[in-house]
Amino acid sequence: MSNELFLIRRDLWVKRVAIGQAGGPTSVINATLVGLVKELMNDYKISFILNGYDGLVHEDIMEGTNEIIKWVVQHEHIPGACLGSGRYLMSENEITGIVNFLKRENINVLVFIGGNGTMEALHKVDLEATRQGYELQVIGLPKTVDNDINYTDHAPGFGSAAKYVAHTTRDLSYDLRSMKNFEQVRIIETMGRNAGWLTAASGFLKKHEEEGPHFIALPERQLSKEKLLDAVESAVSRHGYAIAVVSEGVLWDEGHQVGKTIINNRPVLGGISTEVEKFLSEQLNVEVRSDILGMNQRCFSSLVSEADKKEAYLTGATGGRWIKQEFSSVVVTIQRSDEADYKIQMKPIALKDVAVSGERLMPDYFIDNPKKYYKWLSPIIDGSGITYPNLSPKNGGEKKKLRNN
Amino acid sequence: MSNELFLIRRDLWVKRVAIGQAGGPTSVINATLVGLVKELMNDYKISFILNGYDGLVHEDIMEGTNEIIKWVVQHEHIPGACLGSGRYLMSENEITGIVNFLKRENINVLVFIGGNGTMEALHKVDLEATRQGYELQVIGLPKTVDNDINYTDHAPGFGSAAKYVAHTTRDLSYDLRSMKNFEQVRIIETMGRNAGWLTAASGFLKKHEEEGPHFIALPERQLSKEKLLDAVESAVSRHGYAIAVVSEGVLWDEGHQVGKTIINNRPVLGGISTEVEKFLSEQLNVEVRSDILGMNQRCFSSLVSEADKKEAYLTGATGGRWIKQEFSSVVVTIQRSDEADYKIQMKPIALKDVAVSGERLMPDYFIDNPKKYYKWLSPIIDGSGITYPNLSPKNGGEKKKLRNN
Repeated sequence: MSNELFLIRRDLWVKRVAIGQAGGPTSVINATLVGLVKELMNDYKISFILNGYDGLVHEDIMEGTNEIIKWVVQHEHIPGACLGSGRYLMSENEITGIVNFLKRENINVLVFIGGNGTMEALHKVDLEATRQGYELQVIGLPKTVDNDINYTDHAPGFGSAAKYVAHTTRDLSYDLRSMKNFEQVRIIETMGRNAGWLTAASGFLKKHEEEGPHFIALPERQLSKEKLLDAVESAVSRHGYAIAVVSEGVLWDEGHQVGKTIINNRPVLGGISTEVEKFLSEQLNVEVRSDILGMNQRCFSSLVSEADKKEAYLTGATGGRWIKQEFSSVVVTIQRSDEADYKIQMKPIALKDVAVSGERLMPDYFIDNPKKYYKWLSPIIDGSGITYPNLSPKNGGEKKKLRNN
Repeated sequence: MSNELFLIRRDLWVKRVAIGQAGGPTSVINATLVGLVKELMNDYKISFILNGYDGLVHEDIMEGTNEIIKWVVQHEHIPGACLGSGRYLMSENEITGIVNFLKRENINVLVFIGGNGTMEALHKVDLEATRQGYELQVIGLPKTVDNDINYTDHAPGFGSAAKYVAHTTRDLSYDLRSMKNFEQVRIIETMGRNAGWLTAASGFLKKHEEEGPHFIALPERQLSKEKLLDAVESAVSRHGYAIAVVSEGVLWDEGHQVGKTIINNRPVLGGISTEVEKFLSEQLNVEVRSDILGMNQRCFSSLVSEADKKEAYLTGATGGRWIKQEFSSVVVTIQRSDEADYKIQMKPIALKDVAVSGERLMPDYFIDNPKKYYKWLSPIIDGSGITYPNLSPKNGGEKKKLRNN
């Protein structure tokens, strides 16, 4: 009897937190979710929002029973967003409706794991709750493969995507070299939209002058046909082949963005590589093909960056601790506290600041100094791993035409 | 003085072996090369043929000095063909020229690592040597990602490619599920030309009914638009999304092969996924996108099958031993000696038989019984690794719409 009473009182007293995932998933977005859930599961009543803001608007919420919590926790190393994600643009009416719903359900804490769009939406819900006088604790947990979130040194999800791009570019370079008598130019298209962090990572493992990439086109700079042509021509004449890496968001210097299609009112990029392929085929007497790295960049679990996965988990766990400490209207960010020895600390940044700051592009000091960028990138993507041998053998390794005796 | 004399006599007496790599490279073709070289390096004079048959025709050969041997051996775990590969169709005159060249150079042994095309060419050189009365020892070492070489249980290179396809399909399935409110259908295009082994491997890791792939199109069977539509429609209506995997070599049941372009007089496939994407977009009111897995299938070194890499090395080492044992005109093949416990043994098969047997398609008993195929495939691609959780949580995991209190 006393037990029952205690349970009822505890149920009334315990705060209720609703957690959602939104935007394009990553290989480690579930690690952040699990870090958060493990931190909160003993002290809070947890509800899971299904399919991002769509689920919040349509009140599609799953209770965090023991079974469900157990199921969620199993996803620590699994790619994709296990709660369902999505890209849903809310109307003002829907935002009002959300706050009414949270009130009715006595949900005291709202957490979303997502990118810039997610943080903007979360900020709007936060403002609406304030306007309605509803005391709602709001926490944003960053994730992105593009690394385009401001106020954080980098965001979980990026390191694993960058590692995939770096490794695959190196492997494709060694592959193309094998076939240079058959085909000479390969265009590799990466994700990245307006920010070039991921595309630039393609050169991280390059150790030898001959090795690709021989040209990298970032969305921060318009793509000069002349420069592209020069770089590819020069690599083909020196080495017999060329690898060019282009971001999906690149613009020709003539000014139009290519390969853009519209899905659910949102521009979806992709296709610049085909256009570059066509251009180079017309200009040069070589065989050109393109590989679009595609969704593997955001979900290839077999080459996750261990550093990234740990930080993703830590981001979630930190969010959980800050919820207990009554933080609100903040985003959990990663700050590099020691450059030389790579140490990080987590820092709360006002949600509003992140929400209004737009996309974080690659700064000029990294674009103009790739070595500096790669040094910065190294701890995030687990360093360089196995070193590949020279493409041409040293010490007498020049190819030698055997003549008649 | 006596040392010098000994060296000269040894040089005259030691047999000379020329080694080349040809056809599309794989992640483990260098492992085969290294296995062979290590077996021979102390007893034979080794020369390396650059860029496949092109190099043999144009007498582009690199002496196996200590430095070069060391450089080659460093490639055991590196993707691509370090000697250079290619696709070169020899004329009859060129074949005659090759044998003249081998004679002149006192090359006694010729080894090529390659696929069906390579074995056909090697057989022609072998016949020409016999016709000219030149005693040439000829050994073929198989490699393929398509697994389309006859008389061998499977060939090195296939296991790693199959592992890549299986893992990426599972990850893409979990990724798409996250985004099913935004897009519903993903087409994955694999390599495979006329043989469906690689494409069929896409379903190997599928453990849950909901998980993709929901449809697999193999080149051995014409693709029925009706069946494709039914499968995709059914998966979307039951689960909210669908993954269809198609081989690049698939034909619609109307009979024409799609997405074929010609590079250096050789048809290069690719593009069926775009056609399937277009078809499904027209027929269904859903968002459809496609991912072409591309060259990563044959060079992604971070997800190599360890079993495959070991067998690739063993294939090369066995070739080396058989050269010492005076075998000639044979291909090194892998035979499964114990089905239940997976044991293999290497068996010599007449080069002629392999060369004239054409491509090895997937047999009906595997196409019609995927479970049987996956059991056969398991030891080749390192088993299934980490098991992913259910896509829908068990025991009360049904999504629950919260209503007003």
